[in-house]
Amino acid sequence: MKESIVRLRALEKQLYAYRYALNAIDFDAETVAPEGGADGRAEACEVLSRASFDLLVNEDTAALLRQAAADAEDEQQAAEVRELQRQYDEIAKIPAAEYAAFTKLVQQSIPVWTKAKRTNDFALFAPYLEKIVEARRAQAKYFAPDRDPYEVWLDRYERGLTIAQCDEFFATLRATIVPLLAAIRDHGAAIRTDFLDQDWPLDAQKLVSQKIMELWGLEPEHCLLAESEHPFTTEFWRGDVRITTHYMPRDMFSNLYSVAHEGGHALYERHIAPELDYTAITGGATMGLHESQSRLFENYVGRSRAFVHCLYPTLRELFPTQLADVTEEEIWRAVNRAEPGLIRTEADELTYALHIMVRYELEKAMIQGTLAVRDLPAAWNAKYKEYLGLDVPDDGHGCLQDIHWAMGDMGYFPSYALGSAYGAQAIADLSKTMDLDAQWAEGNLQPLKDALCDRLWQYGNLKEPAWLVKSLCGGDFDPHYFTDYLKAKYTALYQL
Amino acid sequence: MKESIVRLRALEKQLYAYRYALNAIDFDAETVAPEGGADGRAEACEVLSRASFDLLVNEDTAALLRQAAADAEDEQQAAEVRELQRQYDEIAKIPAAEYAAFTKLVQQSIPVWTKAKRTNDFALFAPYLEKIVEARRAQAKYFAPDRDPYEVWLDRYERGLTIAQCDEFFATLRATIVPLLAAIRDHGAAIRTDFLDQDWPLDAQKLVSQKIMELWGLEPEHCLLAESEHPFTTEFWRGDVRITTHYMPRDMFSNLYSVAHEGGHALYERHIAPELDYTAITGGATMGLHESQSRLFENYVGRSRAFVHCLYPTLRELFPTQLADVTEEEIWRAVNRAEPGLIRTEADELTYALHIMVRYELEKAMIQGTLAVRDLPAAWNAKYKEYLGLDVPDDGHGCLQDIHWAMGDMGYFPSYALGSAYGAQAIADLSKTMDLDAQWAEGNLQPLKDALCDRLWQYGNLKEPAWLVKSLCGGDFDPHYFTDYLKAKYTALYQL
Repeated sequence: MKESIVRLRALEKQLYAYRYALNAIDFDAETVAPEGGADGRAEACEVLSRASFDLLVNEDTAALLRQAAADAEDEQQAAEVRELQRQYDEIAKIPAAEYAAFTKLVQQSIPVWTKAKRTNDFALFAPYLEKIVEARRAQAKYFAPDRDPYEVWLDRYERGLTIAQCDEFFATLRATIVPLLAAIRDHGAAIRTDFLDQDWPLDAQKLVSQKIMELWGLEPEHCLLAESEHPFTTEFWRGDVRITTHYMPRDMFSNLYSVAHEGGHALYERHIAPELDYTAITGGATMGLHESQSRLFENYVGRSRAFVHCLYPTLRELFPTQLADVTEEEIWRAVNRAEPGLIRTEADELTYALHIMVRYELEKAMIQGTLAVRDLPAAWNAKYKEYLGLDVPDDGHGCLQDIHWAMGDMGYFPSYALGSAYGAQAIADLSKTMDLDAQWAEGNLQPLKDALCDRLWQYGNLKEPAWLVKSLCGGDFDPHYFTDYLKAKYTALYQL
Repeated sequence: MKESIVRLRALEKQLYAYRYALNAIDFDAETVAPEGGADGRAEACEVLSRASFDLLVNEDTAALLRQAAADAEDEQQAAEVRELQRQYDEIAKIPAAEYAAFTKLVQQSIPVWTKAKRTNDFALFAPYLEKIVEARRAQAKYFAPDRDPYEVWLDRYERGLTIAQCDEFFATLRATIVPLLAAIRDHGAAIRTDFLDQDWPLDAQKLVSQKIMELWGLEPEHCLLAESEHPFTTEFWRGDVRITTHYMPRDMFSNLYSVAHEGGHALYERHIAPELDYTAITGGATMGLHESQSRLFENYVGRSRAFVHCLYPTLRELFPTQLADVTEEEIWRAVNRAEPGLIRTEADELTYALHIMVRYELEKAMIQGTLAVRDLPAAWNAKYKEYLGLDVPDDGHGCLQDIHWAMGDMGYFPSYALGSAYGAQAIADLSKTMDLDAQWAEGNLQPLKDALCDRLWQYGNLKEPAWLVKSLCGGDFDPHYFTDYLKAKYTALYQL
């Protein structure tokens, strides 16, 4: 191994250690940390983030990356250089003063957004959002001065994605989902939901979590399940992946599908090739690819008729009185029902993409300058009326509901919907040669996991995202697999 | 504030951040981390420890400390310089190659000790212990070439402590404790213990923990109670202190007194002056002073007749069947009973100091070169026979039981016994003007806490340990307060 690569690996391991520390501190904060500990945690995290930043962004690293790019002798070494260079450029292309000002703006913006959401006061947040939109528009010019600034951000989050692809993607979704929703509303068969809202003892709910972890094959030696306000997944490293859930005393399925979802993220992280440990290219690739795996395990597996059949005896055993007169078929219908709602994070599989589409169209318009921030609430409410048929009562349940824009993330939302579509195509492709339903009905997920590991998981960031998407999908990405899936599923479910 | 002090404070905050990260990672490892995560954690901790080390030990810091020593304008600034200089010297006085070799030796030594303890194979561990003893003897010369090498280490752990003081201290203890134990054995009144070993439901035990936390005044916003194999306390910072306990299904009092003990450590950390946050002089002072507070709350408060009276109604309510025929007096007697045993960590208040005395005499002899490592087991067993009247069946229950020597800690053990003695003197002195028993019987610990905060807690490391010991004790340290306490307590308890 060339000397520059040895030095690069040492730098990668240092950066790994800071990621580990910050992830560990964040996991602690979200799960068990006492409330009064925030100040000292913020002080520590600022120092550690800064130290990690300084390790990456400096003249020595720039020179090392140039040398290592010339010295790389195999695919992995080249990928490590490419990934570190990408992270370097992400920061270094923006003038230092502007980068620092933006970091500060985001830090100030988040508590203002929190208060604005709580008090339904968009005017409070608007000046911050204006500055964020301006900053993101200006920053995009440093990456690609001649490109549409929103596309620059799309490309940074979901590398290779264009506005044209996104427009076509959402148009395809819209053309399927909106009529499907109307058909369900107008002549869908009734779905029994009376049994959903009752007392579901927490001890039994915890055994449901265990059962899902077992079926997914997440070994307790390497994957911890904890509790937090909002479920999430974080990897300390490949050998130590944490997922969280939130138990609702009156909603058993919330936890079940949270564990299924986060478990999908965890499976991806757990199966990255060990050769990538401690390098810059370990970890899942894009957010869209990550979400494809979580949604695949939550929806395509977890909400399938076959898997509900597999889980039904366990649920009956754990909740004998609650499910005394509830059939397998009724559970399957209930956990798949589609109902337009105001809140993205509570949306079902069918309406979820519409929530994303609203955000995509609005953030694109703001960055492109065709929508003024002050007009956001009206535009938001109009789109919820148009796509979901709902009146938005206040901005807390409307354009203030998500933290993403307050954090400076614009161009990030489409990944959520893309993930579902990638997953649908992967399942469709795998189904050509595998009887997945028969396997899932028996609780046998190994063949599916082997295939996903083969197509996606093992690679981490060794390959470019576009290559990974094609590998996962078994061909060029085509959103019709997702819309075909939705049509078939909801037509059967609602007997349309 | 002079420029050098500003720079020193920035360095202190950086060092704080690494302490925070390493403490958070360690707390996670001891409480919830999945077993399979150890490799990646070790990699991360090595980088972070090294980064923290490099921040402190370099020519720039040496120059900064010289300048800051000249520039310090008040007591706090001078103390920060003094403390950082002490930490710097701790490392920098030892040649870098020797320091690195010793760090490696300890890393290798710990797993060997673990195996040796498990297999009762002292010969396996002996070569490592020999090297550790040699290294510590050699290192002591760098700190004080003309001083007894063991005293150098005593002084580093419990600053200001001499062999003469230690010899006198243990001689005093021995002169009291050995005859007391003999008297108990020969004509002590019987103590009822039949109710100790029964089923104590964990839910009720957890409410006992909560009750102790409430009585100690450890607010959940700033102090988390978690579970671990061995109870410990760690501070992330003053506003976030963690303690752990271990629940035993057949021993209710183990958890009760663990929480009481760790809670004493936590109270100390929680009451350090906020002005010291993020500096090098926050945190408890010496280990002896820290142990004085944990033992004070565990033994002097927690095992007092008055406090058992206070707690009795709660215990009766939580364990109505288990304690149906057990009186307050019987509980007090049972939790204070003295029985010679082989294991230090399970020792009672009376015999504990004898365990420490054995270790003190043996580690002193090894460092001074009057005891060869190969003769350690025989010497250990002889002293257990002499002081405690026990035959040691194997080295796992003998000289291999503690990890300290394997970690390179020699001169550390006396702090444990000193802590008990400091606490006894503090209580004796406070009792001159306060009716502590009456307060504790009502569960009112505030006057005691105010007095301890006034005498010790607030200062962190602002003052030198010798000053703090005197302040805590209300005068020059005198071990007779501890022996008088033991005599009075055990004479009453066993009706001698």
